[in-house]
Amino acid sequence: MVDVVISGTVALDSIKTPFGEVKEVLGGSAVYSSVAANEFARAGIVSVIGKDFPKKYLNLLNTMGIDTQGIDVKKGDTFRWAGYYEYDMNQAHTLDTKLNVLSAFDPKLPDSYRQADYLFLGNTDPEVQMKVYRQMKKPRLVMMDTMNFWIENKKEALTKMIEKSDVIVVNDAEARQYFETPNLVQAGHSFLNMGPKAVIVKKGEHGALMFTDGACFSAPAFPLEKLVDPTGAGDSFAGGFIGWLARTGDISPRNMRKAIIFGSAIASFNAEDFSLNKLKSITRDDIFNRYMMFQDIVSF
Amino acid sequence: MVDVVISGTVALDSIKTPFGEVKEVLGGSAVYSSVAANEFARAGIVSVIGKDFPKKYLNLLNTMGIDTQGIDVKKGDTFRWAGYYEYDMNQAHTLDTKLNVLSAFDPKLPDSYRQADYLFLGNTDPEVQMKVYRQMKKPRLVMMDTMNFWIENKKEALTKMIEKSDVIVVNDAEARQYFETPNLVQAGHSFLNMGPKAVIVKKGEHGALMFTDGACFSAPAFPLEKLVDPTGAGDSFAGGFIGWLARTGDISPRNMRKAIIFGSAIASFNAEDFSLNKLKSITRDDIFNRYMMFQDIVSF
Repeated sequence: MVDVVISGTVALDSIKTPFGEVKEVLGGSAVYSSVAANEFARAGIVSVIGKDFPKKYLNLLNTMGIDTQGIDVKKGDTFRWAGYYEYDMNQAHTLDTKLNVLSAFDPKLPDSYRQADYLFLGNTDPEVQMKVYRQMKKPRLVMMDTMNFWIENKKEALTKMIEKSDVIVVNDAEARQYFETPNLVQAGHSFLNMGPKAVIVKKGEHGALMFTDGACFSAPAFPLEKLVDPTGAGDSFAGGFIGWLARTGDISPRNMRKAIIFGSAIASFNAEDFSLNKLKSITRDDIFNRYMMFQDIVSF
Repeated sequence: MVDVVISGTVALDSIKTPFGEVKEVLGGSAVYSSVAANEFARAGIVSVIGKDFPKKYLNLLNTMGIDTQGIDVKKGDTFRWAGYYEYDMNQAHTLDTKLNVLSAFDPKLPDSYRQADYLFLGNTDPEVQMKVYRQMKKPRLVMMDTMNFWIENKKEALTKMIEKSDVIVVNDAEARQYFETPNLVQAGHSFLNMGPKAVIVKKGEHGALMFTDGACFSAPAFPLEKLVDPTGAGDSFAGGFIGWLARTGDISPRNMRKAIIFGSAIASFNAEDFSLNKLKSITRDDIFNRYMMFQDIVSF
């Protein structure tokens, strides 16, 4: 049985940062999210790959205990992304995107996924997100991510998806863009008025904010002195978040605060190396230790 | 007796924001800092004004209990700043700066100031800061602010001043600029290596970081839904910080964390109205209530 269903991309990434360069490594939103969620609960991926997808990467995911039955294998090539980061690491610069099989992504959920209680709709076309959502029986918690492209080009479909979601995760620029306001607090409250019970605004090196009914939670980012590769930070954050909720079965705003810290802890590990190099080696103890460091960072 | 000596500017500000416009109102770094510090301890200003300075503003400061003996009245006009904020409020745009009497600012501390335990050197020419510092007997804690202009044009004098300081307050862009690194954690540690025991990095709407030996503290900004005028936010933050230290007589890193929250609370009130309109009406209870709200904002 799968606890958390995660839809999104499975990618072959080629990335250059001031600290190194990798070619065609395992990446994609569903990969980062599921590996992070899997620290706490059993995650199953919904995505699509091409015939060229390296077996070793599927094996790696399966060895970690991630369910890959929901990954459709199609004729053609796997989605590829190539990009680089400047010295400031704050923004990914895209060199090349090849959608390949992703352009005809028509998600089909295995029966074993449909009864899962937790659903994370990673950033894809909101119409694809809706297709995934509709195949689920009765999820307890639906969380979604999105990006500027869908706000600009598919706002209506996106709005429908937001209205069905319990938790929405966006970055600060997207929150401002959606409501055309510079004020994140206003944007957060406006999202709550659309239906979600919690709105999480990711701010990169500045941490994250969560708005719930009548309350605001502010989480710091972990103060890393050396970031190697920020790719997948937002996805591993979201995966760690929903994984913790699934593990504890507690979706109260109070437990969501803890979930944000666990997500931040996992995301900070992820940024310490390329691809899954760091995430695949950390233990539950490492995560709990970093959680405790977060407690010290904010206490006064 | 003065507890906290504060040097900096006393200004007549003309400001336009999306929420209103004011002309020739009381402002300046030393004014905002001293009003904030004065919530907790007796503050004395070191600055210079012209003969044109309105009596009512001096009366206001004195009525609040702020010592103005260290404000030199010179022939000529008072320092003036005119600026505006766009809708996003993140950056002040300068329309006009008239240094006037400030250009020949030669600080002379009244005897009653020299024995104070706490000194805050607001943002001015680092050589002027040094002159103020040298007139103090034996302050327990020296804190300083600066800005990009001095990093670019007087780095040597600035460096000498930093080496004499116990606490340095800078914004994130200045921290990055001084050490030419995008990484705030690295910049923070590099400042510590120069001598200060604490480095506070202001990040505006993202709060503040404090680096002390072996520890990092992250404070959120108060989630205001409506900012009216951010002018003086950094100065009132710093004033509230040093005021709390002076009131408690405790300069431990642990108490500095509380001081940062008090500074943030006062700065958040300040942004709710123009000039001192809000600060002059808040009570100690208001500040403590907001402090408690900060505790809720970060707890998990």
